[in-house]
Amino acid sequence: MARLFEKTVPAPPNEYVRVECESLKSFVSAVLSAFKVSEEHSRIVADVLVTADLMGIESHGVQRLKRYTMGIQVGSVNPHACLKVVKKSASTALVDGGSGLGQVTAYNAMEIAIRKAEEVGVSVVGVRNSHHFGIAGYYALQAVKHGMIGMVMTNSEALVAYTHTVGRSVGTNPIAVSFPTKNPPPVLFDAATSVIPIGKVEVYAKENKKIPLGWAISPEGKLLDDPKEVLTRKGAILPLGGFGEDFGGHKGAGLALVVDLLCGVLTGANYGKNVKHTTDKERANVGHFMLAIDIAKLTPMEDFLERIEEYKGYVKGLTKASEEAEVWIPGEKAWLTMETRKRIGIPIHKNILKELKEESEKAGVEFNIKVLKETA
Amino acid sequence: MARLFEKTVPAPPNEYVRVECESLKSFVSAVLSAFKVSEEHSRIVADVLVTADLMGIESHGVQRLKRYTMGIQVGSVNPHACLKVVKKSASTALVDGGSGLGQVTAYNAMEIAIRKAEEVGVSVVGVRNSHHFGIAGYYALQAVKHGMIGMVMTNSEALVAYTHTVGRSVGTNPIAVSFPTKNPPPVLFDAATSVIPIGKVEVYAKENKKIPLGWAISPEGKLLDDPKEVLTRKGAILPLGGFGEDFGGHKGAGLALVVDLLCGVLTGANYGKNVKHTTDKERANVGHFMLAIDIAKLTPMEDFLERIEEYKGYVKGLTKASEEAEVWIPGEKAWLTMETRKRIGIPIHKNILKELKEESEKAGVEFNIKVLKETA
Repeated sequence: MARLFEKTVPAPPNEYVRVECESLKSFVSAVLSAFKVSEEHSRIVADVLVTADLMGIESHGVQRLKRYTMGIQVGSVNPHACLKVVKKSASTALVDGGSGLGQVTAYNAMEIAIRKAEEVGVSVVGVRNSHHFGIAGYYALQAVKHGMIGMVMTNSEALVAYTHTVGRSVGTNPIAVSFPTKNPPPVLFDAATSVIPIGKVEVYAKENKKIPLGWAISPEGKLLDDPKEVLTRKGAILPLGGFGEDFGGHKGAGLALVVDLLCGVLTGANYGKNVKHTTDKERANVGHFMLAIDIAKLTPMEDFLERIEEYKGYVKGLTKASEEAEVWIPGEKAWLTMETRKRIGIPIHKNILKELKEESEKAGVEFNIKVLKETA
Repeated sequence: MARLFEKTVPAPPNEYVRVECESLKSFVSAVLSAFKVSEEHSRIVADVLVTADLMGIESHGVQRLKRYTMGIQVGSVNPHACLKVVKKSASTALVDGGSGLGQVTAYNAMEIAIRKAEEVGVSVVGVRNSHHFGIAGYYALQAVKHGMIGMVMTNSEALVAYTHTVGRSVGTNPIAVSFPTKNPPPVLFDAATSVIPIGKVEVYAKENKKIPLGWAISPEGKLLDDPKEVLTRKGAILPLGGFGEDFGGHKGAGLALVVDLLCGVLTGANYGKNVKHTTDKERANVGHFMLAIDIAKLTPMEDFLERIEEYKGYVKGLTKASEEAEVWIPGEKAWLTMETRKRIGIPIHKNILKELKEESEKAGVEFNIKVLKETA
């Protein structure tokens, strides 16, 4: 039996319970349905959120449910929205999400990309008028199920200071790229183009810990080590590569800009500071970029699968920096965490569980998440 | 008249001369032709090399000419090679470079990508059996001339330590993405997925300066500040994001891995340590990945051009970190440097000029580079 591994460990453990994954999914889906989201669409959103929790990306998991139901309540998120194809060619489409749930829009946009790539080899679907869609990697993995390479980007609310500027001007604009493999896990690169996601600063604030200098700057451009100052004084996260250009900060900022151009400017969605939060009154108009490449159109699939296994072996066989070091393939930690949590349950902070209970009451839905045990 | 700006300033100035750009191009082309490269192909290579010098990326400029002529002499580079399409679909092609000059192979591969994108909207061309191709941005800009977004990647000789490992295991594997604009310059992101390129370490070594801790590690995994130790003891460059995972080093390493999978594993080219140097006896078998997106297939071109100008204005208008700070759009510095050097000449180090003279003698070609003046 595979070893138990979790990318993120519940700390302190006595503040968490473990819940059964399928019951969590059904619950989230039921809450969304109560907010007039169709059953099919509710199931998609629930699967994206719970997959994030399974993968150890709790910041993007069910703790965000409230954000989406609030978005529906304030009228920013349209629960009935259906994707509309604005323009298409043999290998491209521009789609409008109708300000619906980002997960539903992104899922369906990637399905279009997959069908087009099946026909012609490679495809791009640009998405405008969407919302925050959770983890980018989820949609990249859709392509993997069809023997394809998936590439997914989204722009997002401005939190990052562009190089040589202060203040929040660009999103953490993540890039996800996934590749099928012969043996699981598939390769899944999924990363914000900033040094860290904002969720990490929130965790440090909660735990009263200082953040390393080089993660964030004050509105005056001073490096910050107090996470609360980052959050309350509207500090900005630094791009991957950090402050200035000495360690490549302009590369991280440049990648964030490229994502904004592909997701916002190409599609006609918002960009930079114009991208709104899910719960703002004004529609968020988030943009996404989806790319699918049908591997078999370029090279026999079995050859590709042999080569990628060889590559994984190559990386795993590199000389470790220390005795205790572990060498990871992108996506491997998330995958092991998912396998572990399917067996022993998803750790949910008691405060989040309470919030979910409140959601169930608001929605008039039975609170039937199956708690397996306290983690402590 | 536009102000004079150079991304890299000749230092110390008295070691440099300025040469006229077209005469440099003709000279490089003539030398390559003497090595049995066709006139058409020689002109492509010369243009790629001189464009790098014009853009202030001297590490990839004419100082590399010797590397390519040596590659031909040792038999690794085939001067007569023609690109062969191995497999194709409506929007994809896998091509074999026949171990020819990387510049020629990449140029022609991108031309195929552009034609396919013109027909169907988006295209991918995978390239195997190529060589070092110089600056990735050159090929991305080919797409821009056709109103397209270009994305270009290449793997390269191993110089970077993958996260949690020591030694040189992956290339600096650059990514270039370019976008047309209404007003020049086009947006051109072009960056190695490592903190810095190896050329920067060489410059610090030459100038007897210490490098910042966080650029490179020793074979034992110690951070290095002596550039000579990096070069002579086979130290490794760190991925963008630096050492370990605290500042996102795993993201830079993950991007390098994604580039290796797209360029090496997808195409059947070499990857990791297997990628050979241009002058090694064994064929390098470098792999490239080319993507072109025909913007007009997704959105009216004039709308896109309006939006991207707005975006440039947005970035340029952000609050500067200090009075002296300048905010740059990716590609802007290189473009201004190019405009400047077309007017006042390209600075060439006297040692490089001497090397070029030696090349002319070896090739039996007239040494007719037009020197404009000493830079001091």
